[in-house]
Amino acid sequence: MELKPIGIVVSRYRERADAPRQGRESEVTSRITIFEDYQEGLDGLENYSNIIVLYWADRADRNILRVVPPGQTQERGVFATRSPSRPNPIAMCMVDLLEIKGKIITVRGLDALDGSPVLDIKPFSSEIDSI
Amino acid sequence: MELKPIGIVVSRYRERADAPRQGRESEVTSRITIFEDYQEGLDGLENYSNIIVLYWADRADRNILRVVPPGQTQERGVFATRSPSRPNPIAMCMVDLLEIKGKIITVRGLDALDGSPVLDIKPFSSEIDSI
Repeated sequence: MELKPIGIVVSRYRERADAPRQGRESEVTSRITIFEDYQEGLDGLENYSNIIVLYWADRADRNILRVVPPGQTQERGVFATRSPSRPNPIAMCMVDLLEIKGKIITVRGLDALDGSPVLDIKPFSSEIDSI
Repeated sequence: MELKPIGIVVSRYRERADAPRQGRESEVTSRITIFEDYQEGLDGLENYSNIIVLYWADRADRNILRVVPPGQTQERGVFATRSPSRPNPIAMCMVDLLEIKGKIITVRGLDALDGSPVLDIKPFSSEIDSI
């Protein structure tokens, strides 16, 4: 199971300390540059106001199974947290879609660090993605 | 970017025609068997009633960029659809968590086919995952 990056994140967040715990907590805008080979896959995405970005948290530690979540004192299993550190560091972030211009997507609320490889983009659907 | 399966789906859905378009549309229960090496990562997950399962849609076509979504007539880019077929077939499904017993997780509403490799599990948070 080998992943192919479909694009890359351009963000003001350079390192983990810069980024909010979760992107939704911030008004910061980021850009996603989709690689030319995949640009055709964006057709129709402009109809959505919210999208889900899956990206590779390439600076995360893949070898830990327990973490202490921020603001807490007790260790928990990584699958019970949203920590980027986990065996497969696929981060998932629901963001506001602001604009698509060619292969450049502008979004608000993305917590990804600058340079993170983008793996997938999906339209958000409140019917299937929320309770 | 090489993925490691952390577990496997046990489902009554044997092939794509059996599965609903989206798991949330169904009351069917499935099980996820987490591999022993990763079981420790589940600690604390029992506190959540809804979880997000990321799995590898191993029977999807990775080489198409346009699809006609079910019930529609017009082709769209795969990133504007929830089709399993996409360059990185990482499927995402928000499910009801019914029970965790050791390394067996029972859930309701998972659309994954039997035998799908599980990549990640995250707790669902309505604050960050919905509008």
